Amino acid sequence: MKKITDYLEFNKNKFTEELIEYLRFPSVSAQSKHKVDMQNCAQWLANHGKSIGLKTKVHKTLGHPIVTLKTKRKRDVKKPHFLVYGHYDVQPPEPLELWSSPPFEPEIRKRNLFARGASDNKGQHFAHLKAVEAYLKTNTELPCDLTFLIEGEEEVGGESLVSFLKQNKPELKCEGVVVSDTGMPDLKHPALTYALRGVAALEVRLDGPDRDLHSGIYGGSIENPAIALSKLLAQMIDKNGRITIPGFYEDVIKLSAYERKQMARVPFSEGNYKKLLGVKSLFGEKGFTPNEHRAARPTFEINGLTSGYQGEGSKTIVPSYASAKITMRLVPNQNASKILRIVAQHFKKLCPETMRIKVELGHVADPYIVSPKGRLAKAAIKSLKTAFGYEPVLLREGGSIPIVEHFARILKVDTYLLGLALPDDNLHSPNEKMDLDVFTRGIEMSAHLWKNFAEA
Amino acid sequence: MKKITDYLEFNKNKFTEELIEYLRFPSVSAQSKHKVDMQNCAQWLANHGKSIGLKTKVHKTLGHPIVTLKTKRKRDVKKPHFLVYGHYDVQPPEPLELWSSPPFEPEIRKRNLFARGASDNKGQHFAHLKAVEAYLKTNTELPCDLTFLIEGEEEVGGESLVSFLKQNKPELKCEGVVVSDTGMPDLKHPALTYALRGVAALEVRLDGPDRDLHSGIYGGSIENPAIALSKLLAQMIDKNGRITIPGFYEDVIKLSAYERKQMARVPFSEGNYKKLLGVKSLFGEKGFTPNEHRAARPTFEINGLTSGYQGEGSKTIVPSYASAKITMRLVPNQNASKILRIVAQHFKKLCPETMRIKVELGHVADPYIVSPKGRLAKAAIKSLKTAFGYEPVLLREGGSIPIVEHFARILKVDTYLLGLALPDDNLHSPNEKMDLDVFTRGIEMSAHLWKNFAEA
Repeated sequence: MKKITDYLEFNKNKFTEELIEYLRFPSVSAQSKHKVDMQNCAQWLANHGKSIGLKTKVHKTLGHPIVTLKTKRKRDVKKPHFLVYGHYDVQPPEPLELWSSPPFEPEIRKRNLFARGASDNKGQHFAHLKAVEAYLKTNTELPCDLTFLIEGEEEVGGESLVSFLKQNKPELKCEGVVVSDTGMPDLKHPALTYALRGVAALEVRLDGPDRDLHSGIYGGSIENPAIALSKLLAQMIDKNGRITIPGFYEDVIKLSAYERKQMARVPFSEGNYKKLLGVKSLFGEKGFTPNEHRAARPTFEINGLTSGYQGEGSKTIVPSYASAKITMRLVPNQNASKILRIVAQHFKKLCPETMRIKVELGHVADPYIVSPKGRLAKAAIKSLKTAFGYEPVLLREGGSIPIVEHFARILKVDTYLLGLALPDDNLHSPNEKMDLDVFTRGIEMSAHLWKNFAEA
Repeated sequence: MKKITDYLEFNKNKFTEELIEYLRFPSVSAQSKHKVDMQNCAQWLANHGKSIGLKTKVHKTLGHPIVTLKTKRKRDVKKPHFLVYGHYDVQPPEPLELWSSPPFEPEIRKRNLFARGASDNKGQHFAHLKAVEAYLKTNTELPCDLTFLIEGEEEVGGESLVSFLKQNKPELKCEGVVVSDTGMPDLKHPALTYALRGVAALEVRLDGPDRDLHSGIYGGSIENPAIALSKLLAQMIDKNGRITIPGFYEDVIKLSAYERKQMARVPFSEGNYKKLLGVKSLFGEKGFTPNEHRAARPTFEINGLTSGYQGEGSKTIVPSYASAKITMRLVPNQNASKILRIVAQHFKKLCPETMRIKVELGHVADPYIVSPKGRLAKAAIKSLKTAFGYEPVLLREGGSIPIVEHFARILKVDTYLLGLALPDDNLHSPNEKMDLDVFTRGIEMSAHLWKNFAEA
């Protein structure tokens, strides 16, 4: 590795210069005026890959192009094959007046590189590209075959990638996917994200009278749908923050002592967190920490309530109906469709005879987990530790990341999320930036990763 | 009374012809195009009153004129004085296409007279006028002094009447007000309405985070305002339909056995009632009947619920706030302002520490009751019985009637509600009508009323 780390050290500034060049493209996938910028950006990436010795191709899609960059035109059957996923499209930069320097004129201030796309996601996947460059330019044999899969529609739904995965399954067959598109708490806490929550959505509606009724003439003799709904919803979570729906926790894998210990290592300040969210106090399931609440435990949330009159002043009615939009965040190994089924059943069972109930099932996404003790996970942790010099933390992410589900479903492969974004990197906001120390260490991490993956 | 009843019998058809003339005026107070029709209608009424021997005056107001019709220019201090309230303005007739005959071209079909305003309220107060005519035209001495107070803004808020009452307090001083502007169940159940419910409105809002939050990233670690609100609201009414707010029932006068017996006499079909409201089943406070629930017991109703996302599909957020609009119907002797105070206090006490609560107090109206066993009430009941030939029912009305409150507050006098509208009279709807049998018996009832009042 000496040759490689020397190369990385020697070319540090060149890497930043190249990243700046990449960041100059206003590759805003959501804005049609940037269609040509998107094409130019994809082409630049392909050319750049070619210049460092990769076999590259710009694939036309129904939307924006997908760029593939491979270490070998034909795969070496003796070497393991990994995918590196990233996206060259960026969020719209507006509102422009809030940027300290123009979003597509990258500027270094202190140890940060400011530009739209710096950390989401150009800087992050570029780091992996630079690690491969080090192998190729120093004539060091790469211990694995790699395919970079860099799409242009991540910020707008990523439809083209799904088709691409389906159409190129044999060629994309691999032992794992590496994605650097999540976060790490700080420089002393490099992170592997090994689990994501799933989601299940439904809407419950209770109908009482067939129209809004005069509360003076009829009020008192019929049940009020908004009160009936409140009573139903109030029963779903107990005072300890525990969901009371029978069978809800049945398939939840217990957090191991190891995982809980790891989660406790993630820096957390209750004061800062409360301030960030603007809440008076925190509340979560008894027996778990806030870090666990928001990423490792399932939830039952009302996303919206609707009933009766919502305008100014008052209207003396018994409303005809009341409805609630509900989503649940799920954790391994809950099955989203099964959860929807038992929740719908439970609502119907508890519904009073005064009401007609309608439960509409919405979208689902299953939770995701890859064991942090698997051989590739361990290899990833080792690489993070070597590059950053600190024991990595193991993260669970509270939301869903659609591409991870696509890789699992279409390619039947696990994804290792090695995020290189810091909490203050302003993703999706003005003054997005990449910490150049993180960038440098990220490149080094990637250089170790392929060696460690191959040896694992 | 023989002379009088003979006069009434002899002039039956003339009365109907005169009512038809009165109903031809499109006296729609809400529509400015009918301003002159309003003036013409008021003037016709005054002229008509003069023709039967009353001292009449059309009073200009900031809105539509008020007509007074008095039996004496100067009051006879030896006779009791009563007010008869009514209104010559009518609801807009639209939608016109749903009328079987034009709304201002009165038409008799079977025993009904169809026209806008027929029962609400021209027919009802005209009946009282015809009774007085019988006294005057037969040279029978009226045992009381009467002042008819017929306004033109009942359907649009009645602001002018309030000022008029305040400005003419000495002249309007009286022993009681008679209002025929409510209902009776059917011809075999003439009715005295002796109590009205009051109302108290408030809005409760719970604020959690200072903005909608991503339910994946933060969900589980903070309380959801919509769930917190559901839990609060669910506690306000128990499974027996009883309001659980401490002190809520404290001032409620217990229904007497006499009242409950009277209420049980009011015809009620659960099947028809459920069908009318479009509900699966009824629900009300345990231990009381539906007739009692809707008129004689206080209620706690949610009129509106608002929280988070209400559009199509789902949005995975923890909403920033949740709010409920609430009104309570109150019964004698609850005090609306006191109720608001204790309800607000109770919400604040139950509010969890995770939430910031805001309780906004809204409008109030105190409940109203006049004893059905008082001398004037008994006289009214006796008059109804004589005219209709059936034992009258005693009604409580579930809503509020603002004028009754004005008379009580400004003139310090009780109101006797002797409604002459049948349930199928289509008040405020197309094909409004007056039952001519009810009209005839209403006139007779009024003729007896002044005698019975004077003798009471």
